[in-house]
Amino acid sequence: MSTNNPLIGIIMGSKSDLPVMQDAINVLKHLNVPFEVSVVSAHRTPQRMFDYANAAAERGLKVIIAGAGGAAHLPGMVASITHLPVIGVPVKSSNSIDGWDSILSILQMPNGIPVATVALNAAKNAGILAAQMVAIADPNVAEKLIAFKADLKEKVEESAAEVENTNF
Amino acid sequence: MSTNNPLIGIIMGSKSDLPVMQDAINVLKHLNVPFEVSVVSAHRTPQRMFDYANAAAERGLKVIIAGAGGAAHLPGMVASITHLPVIGVPVKSSNSIDGWDSILSILQMPNGIPVATVALNAAKNAGILAAQMVAIADPNVAEKLIAFKADLKEKVEESAAEVENTNF
Amino acid sequence: MSTNNPLIGIIMGSKSDLPVMQDAINVLKHLNVPFEVSVVSAHRTPQRMFDYANAAAERGLKVIIAGAGGAAHLPGMVASITHLPVIGVPVKSSNSIDGWDSILSILQMPNGIPVATVALNAAKNAGILAAQMVAIADPNVAEKLIAFKADLKEKVEESAAEVENTNF
Amino acid sequence: MSTNNPLIGIIMGSKSDLPVMQDAINVLKHLNVPFEVSVVSAHRTPQRMFDYANAAAERGLKVIIAGAGGAAHLPGMVASITHLPVIGVPVKSSNSIDGWDSILSILQMPNGIPVATVALNAAKNAGILAAQMVAIADPNVAEKLIAFKADLKEKVEESAAEVENTNF
Amino acid sequence: MSTNNPLIGIIMGSKSDLPVMQDAINVLKHLNVPFEVSVVSAHRTPQRMFDYANAAAERGLKVIIAGAGGAAHLPGMVASITHLPVIGVPVKSSNSIDGWDSILSILQMPNGIPVATVALNAAKNAGILAAQMVAIADPNVAEKLIAFKADLKEKVEESAAEVENTNF
Amino acid sequence: MSTNNPLIGIIMGSKSDLPVMQDAINVLKHLNVPFEVSVVSAHRTPQRMFDYANAAAERGLKVIIAGAGGAAHLPGMVASITHLPVIGVPVKSSNSIDGWDSILSILQMPNGIPVATVALNAAKNAGILAAQMVAIADPNVAEKLIAFKADLKEKVEESAAEVENTNF
Amino acid sequence: MSTNNPLIGIIMGSKSDLPVMQDAINVLKHLNVPFEVSVVSAHRTPQRMFDYANAAAERGLKVIIAGAGGAAHLPGMVASITHLPVIGVPVKSSNSIDGWDSILSILQMPNGIPVATVALNAAKNAGILAAQMVAIADPNVAEKLIAFKADLKEKVEESAAEVENTNF
Amino acid sequence: MSTNNPLIGIIMGSKSDLPVMQDAINVLKHLNVPFEVSVVSAHRTPQRMFDYANAAAERGLKVIIAGAGGAAHLPGMVASITHLPVIGVPVKSSNSIDGWDSILSILQMPNGIPVATVALNAAKNAGILAAQMVAIADPNVAEKLIAFKADLKEKVEESAAEVENTNF
Repeated sequence: MSTNNPLIGIIMGSKSDLPVMQDAINVLKHLNVPFEVSVVSAHRTPQRMFDYANAAAERGLKVIIAGAGGAAHLPGMVASITHLPVIGVPVKSSNSIDGWDSILSILQMPNGIPVATVALNAAKNAGILAAQMVAIADPNVAEKLIAFKADLKEKVEESAAEVENTNF
Repeated sequence: MSTNNPLIGIIMGSKSDLPVMQDAINVLKHLNVPFEVSVVSAHRTPQRMFDYANAAAERGLKVIIAGAGGAAHLPGMVASITHLPVIGVPVKSSNSIDGWDSILSILQMPNGIPVATVALNAAKNAGILAAQMVAIADPNVAEKLIAFKADLKEKVEESAAEVENTNF
Repeated sequence: MSTNNPLIGIIMGSKSDLPVMQDAINVLKHLNVPFEVSVVSAHRTPQRMFDYANAAAERGLKVIIAGAGGAAHLPGMVASITHLPVIGVPVKSSNSIDGWDSILSILQMPNGIPVATVALNAAKNAGILAAQMVAIADPNVAEKLIAFKADLKEKVEESAAEVENTNF
Repeated sequence: MSTNNPLIGIIMGSKSDLPVMQDAINVLKHLNVPFEVSVVSAHRTPQRMFDYANAAAERGLKVIIAGAGGAAHLPGMVASITHLPVIGVPVKSSNSIDGWDSILSILQMPNGIPVATVALNAAKNAGILAAQMVAIADPNVAEKLIAFKADLKEKVEESAAEVENTNF
Repeated sequence: MSTNNPLIGIIMGSKSDLPVMQDAINVLKHLNVPFEVSVVSAHRTPQRMFDYANAAAERGLKVIIAGAGGAAHLPGMVASITHLPVIGVPVKSSNSIDGWDSILSILQMPNGIPVATVALNAAKNAGILAAQMVAIADPNVAEKLIAFKADLKEKVEESAAEVENTNF
Repeated sequence: MSTNNPLIGIIMGSKSDLPVMQDAINVLKHLNVPFEVSVVSAHRTPQRMFDYANAAAERGLKVIIAGAGGAAHLPGMVASITHLPVIGVPVKSSNSIDGWDSILSILQMPNGIPVATVALNAAKNAGILAAQMVAIADPNVAEKLIAFKADLKEKVEESAAEVENTNF
Repeated sequence: MSTNNPLIGIIMGSKSDLPVMQDAINVLKHLNVPFEVSVVSAHRTPQRMFDYANAAAERGLKVIIAGAGGAAHLPGMVASITHLPVIGVPVKSSNSIDGWDSILSILQMPNGIPVATVALNAAKNAGILAAQMVAIADPNVAEKLIAFKADLKEKVEESAAEVENTNF
Repeated sequence: MSTNNPLIGIIMGSKSDLPVMQDAINVLKHLNVPFEVSVVSAHRTPQRMFDYANAAAERGLKVIIAGAGGAAHLPGMVASITHLPVIGVPVKSSNSIDGWDSILSILQMPNGIPVATVALNAAKNAGILAAQMVAIADPNVAEKLIAFKADLKEKVEESAAEVENTNF
């Protein structure tokens, strides 16, 4: 799926990663940042992955979010091809060893080709981080992010009030 | 140190992290992205950390790179205060358990407050990633990054030629 | 919630940590040590965390118990601000990697700022440890702790008698 | 060694742990908290360990710091016998697997018998934590701790000034 | 429970370890080696543990099997007191981190005080190992063990025949 | 079970590994490579294991796939006896510690005796790898493998189309 | 370098991997299997990697050995493109976390695209495994491998004789 | 080497393990328990390993100590063949990943075939454990072990006296 003039490309190695990656979709909608979503497998569709990464900047994308699990090569390979910032989401997929393989094969990129890695399954944070990057040049998104932070604070304060009034 | 109108703030938890963080400085100079450098400790100067993070956006910084080791709270705490993107460099400091503590305490941020984590000691990649973020709105930096990628490629091709001509 | 003149402050990064932290509440009630409970998030309410830690000693608190999971910064950040002893409870929250991130980001504090870390999810032990600290100056609590130890012993002896009389 | 009327008992499983445990000695001297030092091995002198732990409270000790490495049973066993707070220092001894065994066998105590665990080799933090416990009832020690925190801050600010004035 | 003139003492840190330790009981019954069973907690009944270990050899026990989880000190502490061989069973108890703490705190004993460690939860193997030790001086038990090995082989051969005849 | 003139021998340490190893069977049937299946335990039927490995080449087998879990010695021991390539499948069996023991005891073979290790539970990949080895000398199998790769690609493209047309 | 009509392609992500990969070169020379060597980086020369993998089968290569460290994507990406068997050598490079990242990012490939992984730094075993694959269709190589195994045995027997005659 | 009528067989997978295994030799000499030493490789001399294990009991051996590193199959395979108790020494050899592979591939034996595992590199403890097994039927060895324990205690007491008299 693609909103108009998407700025963020969200890709995942398998459709089975969608329940995890949905959090990135939701938060980008909330922050009003246009995005597109697709499935691109480094291992099963290497040419498609190449073409996607090669065309991304020209097509107007500003940031790519890539989620994958196990020996997760998608974020790093996309980062090897494009000069856009790539955010990697380590997915704790069914074939992963508690997520350690997903994390290490995304995080431990060699010098020269960074992947901005977020926590295991943390697609929501990937979406926020992508918005923060876009916000560098877009004050509207920056304002949305500031409001988002205020919301987080307010919810904790509500919890705090509730707990402080509990009779343990 | 601060170049004119720095866009990137490079901070580290201790001056002993400087040999690792120097790689970020070098690559940003190479890519011609203005930056500043300081020491800010989440644990020993919490108020200074607060003030730094609070003022960063207003002062014109666009991205913050924070390096720390052990129970590394600096990147996450700065990210909790500012809405700017924060890049975390897990440092394998002398008190770290092979870097695992540094990585996990930077990477595993809760939903809502992302830190863009790079590989252990990979300050060079933190610098490149910061430049990639700035390049979203600055085509000059984008060009520098494209040239940087071409350089990486050329060096591998030289190695390849050399190895292919070796008589094993 | 707060009993009269609380000596122990129990805080947690999220209300979802309450089922784990309840064990600290229960044992402090059992040992008759006055306490208060609240939610304070290092990442979502950094200023609130600062204010809580700054005011703690003046308000009469003697020990702070802080529970958090994932990249758990709450115990360490509170310890960076107050000179009171801080007990950290690594919580195996849903976003934690089997608890390793929670443990390492609480335990591996740098020199100068200790956090007294207990076992994963061991809020009960955090409560006992807080009582042991208070007991340094309060013989009534010391007596309660001695009786508590006697209880533990008795329960094992009952189990032992039961097992020794089982016909396997 | 024993200063007059020691409040803190520092014990270690082997004399080879002394270089690590020396940091606890130094910081307690700096904070002016009287202490004693000995070698007590849970595995090679179990009776001596029993007697030490049994007599500790009566002899006027308020806190015990116990350092050990590998399958480190000393802190936990002392905590099983006395009701005083016990601080455990996981030592990365020569027979330890990168310190993981030391940490887990000290930290993961069962419910009922806490050990206040500090970071790997962090005997300095054990000393500070012991002083924090004593300071609950002794405002002189509390003042010393507040000054200690100010010193930490000052040193970081000096580093920061130096780095900010460096010409990278 | 105790058969007549038990040769093997089976102890565990908590009655909750009994479902795991039952496998040791069963195999010793099968191999006709007399044993006794009890609950002895290093942490909650340290004196009882001391007395048990001290009296074991005199009471005619030849081998002690000790099962415990988490920061598991029972096998090592018993081994520190008696000169009998001690077999340690790391139990994956509810408070254990996937069993790693149980394994490391039993296995990594310092030089001088061995614990014969078996696999996680492998109480059956502890029973067989105890029988192997007794068999050094008792040819009847040796024969039982040889028959036991033959049984294992036969069962695999039956499985093999079944699989080889399956139409996949 | 054995097809006519099997080229691939699939063995496993226990019949309980069959649900995992079934994936190797299925993919070899799909790729039309003849195989046989049996149960061979390194630990419970060492002589049978020896005889199987010794006879394999003479009997016409070209590759052996061996699956085992825990302290998994079957793949390595078979590789020590035969000069045929041996593919090891680390099985996450019930007695395994999250699969780490299975992986390390198969993968970390000493110099001189390789085992071609695949991912945890990845019997399907073991089957494909065996077919790839056979395909070195058999163009029919090579063609099957090329078609198999095309299928993988097609399925991803279908997923991609579906996701791209979803209205998030 | 390339011998005549190479059957084995040895590639590595960086020239700095050559000291490790040299062991594969040496054993293939010893076993008289023709090979070629080059540097191909998945991350710095993705197109070159694509072209290499795409052309490999046509150029007459039968097996590819790929060594890489850290987030090691080279073996898996080559395997995603070619249908030849790919052997992965996890290299413990300077930027690797004790080799865990190298191992997991090579081993844990998803279903459909196997990489035959050998032990950390075990390029020698990669060479032997490649020869075993070639030997499926080449009895000369099989004979070499059988002789190689006999050599290994002889060296152990010499060691054994020496040790048995030592006066300890 | 072999003393007269050896009771303990000490074997190792490679002569390079001798510096570690020497500690078992030394302690058995000290305890006056006759032993023999040899090199037996599960992977390079599988038949020799079979013959050794098969003949052990008949030749009068009572216990086998087997040391090995990496994917260490020697202790487990010997235990699969003989009914004698087998003590496994995980060796942190040069090809081991910090010893984890050595430990897990020795410790995690399946039900039915125990290996009495000692700490990493703890050959001294293997020797003591073997003596403890022999002592079940030999009061002379038991007396030696009791004296050995007394020695350990005395040395700690000397250390303690020295430390207690140090002027820190």
